[in-house]
Amino acid sequence: ELWPCFFYTLDVPKPLADCNAVLKALQPIFQEQGMTETVHNWEDHGYLATYIKKNGSFANLRIHPHGVVLVDLQSYSDCTKGREEVDQLLNKVEERMKDLFHGNIKRVKRLPAILRGGVIDRYWPTADGRLVEYDIDEVVYDEDSPFQNIKILHSKQFGNILILSGDVNLAESDLAYTQAIMGSGKEDYTGKEVLILGGGDGASNIDQMVIDGCKKYMRKTCGDVLDNLNGECYQVLIEDCIPVLKRYAKEGRMFDYVINDLTAVPISTSPEEDSTWEFLRLILDLSMKVLKQDGKYFTQGNCINLTDALTLYEEQLSRLYCPVEFSKETVCVPSYMELYPYELKKSGECVLINQASLDCLEVMNSSARRQF
Amino acid sequence: ELWPCFFYTLDVPKPLADCNAVLKALQPIFQEQGMTETVHNWEDHGYLATYIKKNGSFANLRIHPHGVVLVDLQSYSDCTKGREEVDQLLNKVEERMKDLFHGNIKRVKRLPAILRGGVIDRYWPTADGRLVEYDIDEVVYDEDSPFQNIKILHSKQFGNILILSGDVNLAESDLAYTQAIMGSGKEDYTGKEVLILGGGDGASNIDQMVIDGCKKYMRKTCGDVLDNLNGECYQVLIEDCIPVLKRYAKEGRMFDYVINDLTAVPISTSPEEDSTWEFLRLILDLSMKVLKQDGKYFTQGNCINLTDALTLYEEQLSRLYCPVEFSKETVCVPSYMELYPYELKKSGECVLINQASLDCLEVMNSSARRQF
Repeated sequence: ELWPCFFYTLDVPKPLADCNAVLKALQPIFQEQGMTETVHNWEDHGYLATYIKKNGSFANLRIHPHGVVLVDLQSYSDCTKGREEVDQLLNKVEERMKDLFHGNIKRVKRLPAILRGGVIDRYWPTADGRLVEYDIDEVVYDEDSPFQNIKILHSKQFGNILILSGDVNLAESDLAYTQAIMGSGKEDYTGKEVLILGGGDGASNIDQMVIDGCKKYMRKTCGDVLDNLNGECYQVLIEDCIPVLKRYAKEGRMFDYVINDLTAVPISTSPEEDSTWEFLRLILDLSMKVLKQDGKYFTQGNCINLTDALTLYEEQLSRLYCPVEFSKETVCVPSYMELYPYELKKSGECVLINQASLDCLEVMNSSARRQF
Repeated sequence: ELWPCFFYTLDVPKPLADCNAVLKALQPIFQEQGMTETVHNWEDHGYLATYIKKNGSFANLRIHPHGVVLVDLQSYSDCTKGREEVDQLLNKVEERMKDLFHGNIKRVKRLPAILRGGVIDRYWPTADGRLVEYDIDEVVYDEDSPFQNIKILHSKQFGNILILSGDVNLAESDLAYTQAIMGSGKEDYTGKEVLILGGGDGASNIDQMVIDGCKKYMRKTCGDVLDNLNGECYQVLIEDCIPVLKRYAKEGRMFDYVINDLTAVPISTSPEEDSTWEFLRLILDLSMKVLKQDGKYFTQGNCINLTDALTLYEEQLSRLYCPVEFSKETVCVPSYMELYPYELKKSGECVLINQASLDCLEVMNSSARRQF
């Protein structure tokens, strides 16, 4: 149930004057495998030779006059024997090429096979669009809610990982995330009123199905908090946070801390066109309204590579109805595989803070404090 | 100078009774692009259609009776316009497929393009063989020494990364590694004799060229230690550590701490056949000989997914000439993108501990203490 694709890149002398010599040298290797050949000659763009095997496998040999030879193999199944055969074939290609160019091959690169079509999907790109393969070995939960696709996948090293519509949200390995968004251990929450928006661990989410999945399969992050929505010192509200914030603001209810774990800083850098930026500013303004003087607001940023989006976010902070101070910190969240920034601001005892341990990339913890 | 390869996987109803209907539905999309078609029909293994464009690009459409349709596109250059064209083509494929199967497409997966043949290589697989793409934007140093290939590449988020013969060794982001291999802040090194083998930061390495590269480009990790091999309270020896350890043992020179940052636990799980295991045991035994009673030995393990290799390593610890105790800890090293274990043992003022900050995966810190 897997279709592995193997990649092989050879950098040969540039430019490659005689593409045909490469084709002639490598042809026998594929033909020995009983593969049927089809050759396309671009004249000015080199060759593409396609080799087809009876079992459904095939190979592409792309010889490029700029001095790059690419061999891609797509197999039908992913067994040890199949991998060994691929290795042997690529070894022969490498040998023949070294002979042909008298050892003058600048670079040889063999990538791990990409596995497709299987029950388990191991590829979950980072926020900045890089391809990363996770060590997923089990699909724990996979359901579509009215809002999104909810997956909980098991990673050998990160534990269960919550993935919402393809985005890695948090894993059991990611205590660093919770610690960062709670102020990196520098805050004393004793007797304080705390309002948590979102919840990161999928806990305080508007989507009941996320809560159901997390309650069962993400207990290392949410503990038993979701078993009862009302505890001795906390209350979990499953509703849209905007009307709740507006109600609190109207009632004059104030908090010592607001922790916003609703959403990351939007990747889009067009604030005027993108409603997520307006949503973000609305949440910020409402949060400031329910925050006591000298209260603190903590939030996450996004991957530190998204510098434009982060700069734009900081600009929003200067456009709030009240002036705020802020600082930031970068933290490594294991399962994110990239560095992540946080934002915090001016800042109440109400909702218990869960062990919302997210994933393993870096996290930046920035703080902002309301000025009066 | 880049040859991007785009991957697209569609899971259709299984089994796929009519592969030919899929081919007929998708053919026009490629033909509209002015691509030349070659079709191979396996009869019992579905179809491979190859589409060739005049500019050197090509596409493979693999229709599999098990219910998977794969579209791979290999382009000639990687410009925004090219990416948009690919996106448009794949959007059309998705639309046509949804029409054909009345929305019953189980999964659609588009992977970030794999870039090959460029000056910058972004793919550096993890110790457990997973494909990961780094945010490399500059080749800082690239030289072949008599021992190995030495690369220092710049990552936007991890800073400069030292890569020895393809293995990610350390990055400027990886203070967590240094902290872990020094005992996670629980040791007081004041007035102590410390022997560091290796150095992790490429500093105390037998390879002068690694030192030259690190001295210049990894200053955030090694500071100014390498500018002078002899400091007020340290001495850097550029030689094979085995004869040095033997000499110290013969002279009766003892240390409070031995920190072994020479090499990770070998991935091979055949200790009898693999000389790296013998090398590892030799180093361990010699280290115990120069370690004071109740001294401590710290070392790294390897990716926590390599459980067999780590178990085998722990078995070696019971086979040393003297009994030892050990403990372990897991740490996240940012640039590793996997969790890493450390090992430590019984344990001397001599070599300064450098700021050998390694990469961002997890690190396990295990400790072993000599028993008398």
